[in-house]
Amino acid sequence: MADHLITGNAVVGQSGGPTAVINQSLVGVVEGLRGCPEIKTIYGAHHGVRGLVSGDLLDLTILPADRLDAVAATPSAALGSTRDKPDAEYCQRIFESCRTYDIRYFFYIGGNDSSDTCRIVNELSNQAGYELRCFHVPKTIDNDLVENDHTPGYPSAARFVAMAFLGDGLDNTSLPGIKVNIVMGRHAGFLTAASALSRQSETDGPHLIYVPERAFTVDDFIADVDRVYTKLGRCQIAVSEGIQDAEGNAISAMMSGLNERDAHGNVQLSGTGALGDWLAHQIRNRLTPEGGKPPRVRADTFGYLQRCWPDASPIDQVEARLAGQKAAQIARSGDFDGSIVIKRVKNEPYQVGFEVVPLDAVAGKTRHMPTEFLHQNNNVTDAFLEYARPLVGDIPTIGRLG
Amino acid sequence: MADHLITGNAVVGQSGGPTAVINQSLVGVVEGLRGCPEIKTIYGAHHGVRGLVSGDLLDLTILPADRLDAVAATPSAALGSTRDKPDAEYCQRIFESCRTYDIRYFFYIGGNDSSDTCRIVNELSNQAGYELRCFHVPKTIDNDLVENDHTPGYPSAARFVAMAFLGDGLDNTSLPGIKVNIVMGRHAGFLTAASALSRQSETDGPHLIYVPERAFTVDDFIADVDRVYTKLGRCQIAVSEGIQDAEGNAISAMMSGLNERDAHGNVQLSGTGALGDWLAHQIRNRLTPEGGKPPRVRADTFGYLQRCWPDASPIDQVEARLAGQKAAQIARSGDFDGSIVIKRVKNEPYQVGFEVVPLDAVAGKTRHMPTEFLHQNNNVTDAFLEYARPLVGDIPTIGRLG
Repeated sequence: MADHLITGNAVVGQSGGPTAVINQSLVGVVEGLRGCPEIKTIYGAHHGVRGLVSGDLLDLTILPADRLDAVAATPSAALGSTRDKPDAEYCQRIFESCRTYDIRYFFYIGGNDSSDTCRIVNELSNQAGYELRCFHVPKTIDNDLVENDHTPGYPSAARFVAMAFLGDGLDNTSLPGIKVNIVMGRHAGFLTAASALSRQSETDGPHLIYVPERAFTVDDFIADVDRVYTKLGRCQIAVSEGIQDAEGNAISAMMSGLNERDAHGNVQLSGTGALGDWLAHQIRNRLTPEGGKPPRVRADTFGYLQRCWPDASPIDQVEARLAGQKAAQIARSGDFDGSIVIKRVKNEPYQVGFEVVPLDAVAGKTRHMPTEFLHQNNNVTDAFLEYARPLVGDIPTIGRLG
Repeated sequence: MADHLITGNAVVGQSGGPTAVINQSLVGVVEGLRGCPEIKTIYGAHHGVRGLVSGDLLDLTILPADRLDAVAATPSAALGSTRDKPDAEYCQRIFESCRTYDIRYFFYIGGNDSSDTCRIVNELSNQAGYELRCFHVPKTIDNDLVENDHTPGYPSAARFVAMAFLGDGLDNTSLPGIKVNIVMGRHAGFLTAASALSRQSETDGPHLIYVPERAFTVDDFIADVDRVYTKLGRCQIAVSEGIQDAEGNAISAMMSGLNERDAHGNVQLSGTGALGDWLAHQIRNRLTPEGGKPPRVRADTFGYLQRCWPDASPIDQVEARLAGQKAAQIARSGDFDGSIVIKRVKNEPYQVGFEVVPLDAVAGKTRHMPTEFLHQNNNVTDAFLEYARPLVGDIPTIGRLG
């Protein structure tokens, strides 16, 4: 009901850990709103809700299309992002700021925390009888939003992880040893699982994959590594930063010292090599034969490059843009709020559709890897590979001498 | 003097840390030797001199051109590499193995240790009156071979570092903080310096660059970081893994515990996040205001991805291939031994030439960054940027909103 559209301004913000395609969604929203006579000014909020409450806004209405295209192709949040997770009082300030700037359309690009912010702000506006359309545009490399087949940001990060395991696996074949690679993912193992997309022959790594969805014990880990290393003379291992024991305690919490907690009270997992070094140390200690030579053990923590590497998955770029455009389109169609979700229509050829679901369907919930994606034996299933392969784009083919 | 050529077999091996283009040089040697009637079989030695002394050889003569092209485009050492650094007795076994397999042409792709191996084997063959052509084909991401303008492998690793700092710099602008990135390079800072190739505006990082060529003190480091962070509200820092104090002691040696030593007695620098974590810890400890909130400090250690990332610099691929071909060509031209070197002819348009120098001109020597590439203020000079920019290929242009 476009004739129901209220006249006013729009604001768009970016939240949480940036991705390689979060600017595609930003530009998608701006493109989708342009030319709508009811929408006067499209503001960009610097550093998400933080800029919105402080009035740190940028007029995006006047930016030329080529500038927008250049921004869209650039990784990380061009508006700046924030780790603020607004409580009720903070949401009240967001709502008041919307009133101040005559904002009637609020778009927030982020993970499930951002969806929750949209939900609360939406409730406040409803209570106040102030018409405010609130839209959540999905974004997370963790791929842990419910209702979505996958989330913008994940395919590009998965592409990085697959490329990294491909190169690293060849390196570890050249100079054989035990190699631990720590991959981002606090609660969901989707990104770590993407390491398996690098495999092109039966003996290619990763030989072992550990995700938060499966309880981790050091004893089993050492036994697994020993088995693979004894058989192949090398072992490439993918480990989620968020691996946890059977009681749900993060393994990283077992390590003393350098850990920092963020504003949400979570232990800092990224931006430190501690977990990888600790696992390497365990392997070296326990697999060194008495009086013998320790195996060559190395650990790399892929870190922030996973979410900002400037070679995004082509499909991810297209989908992130469309997700932003879809949110704008639905906002322009009348009295709606909601979260945009990606649904897979079919796999061959790959095809997706975009829908809108209520904000509370996504807000504050975490999606985990489904059982059918996880093999008992520290591996992923073919079903996962079929799911993930179309997302990451072309991966180089390995040439071998024999 | 082609008519002087002795009839026999050839062997080629790969040594040391692999690179993204070490297989280009391998294939270049094979291509360059093909069709030479005096050379009967071209062997590939598995894991370098280790395979040569144990007779673990592969017949490369029969491989079709398309297979070779696929191998050339694949990162890491397709034959397998080795960390063995042969002493006189080991070199004697190499020489005897050459006799056993009627090898008259020996090509070794590697760093200055490999050049030294060539030199010793060459001397042994001269003493024994056994005609053996010994060629060193340069390879190292550290770029630390004397006589060379740059070495195959460096441009691709430099490309990775530049791309990484570009993405990471945008990430650190989105969520501002202090970010330490540890880059490979035990004695030479060329690779760490390549981080500066990511800059596209005045306030882009890296804001501070620390290389082994300049004495490192924690006090100065903290003061530098404080100055930048106070000014910009963020700070992106490039640190060589091999930074050392004024006495030449590695800073990494100041950290207790997990460090391992390799066969050469060197402290393990790569494959651990310890140096980055330690520097982040120093910053956090010393820049947290009394009773105040610590700054957001993160450290990433880029690790092995720097040398194996499957997106090699186009120029590096071409030059590594040519270096191998050149070695074969000179071997076929008569009574020569030597090390292939790259000389820059001019910068605009970029042009290089390949020459051969005596083995002892390169063997066992380490090249450092020249003074004119290093700015006093923890930065690189324009001279370095002009030197390095043509090597890495195209880097994405950053799109910005303002």
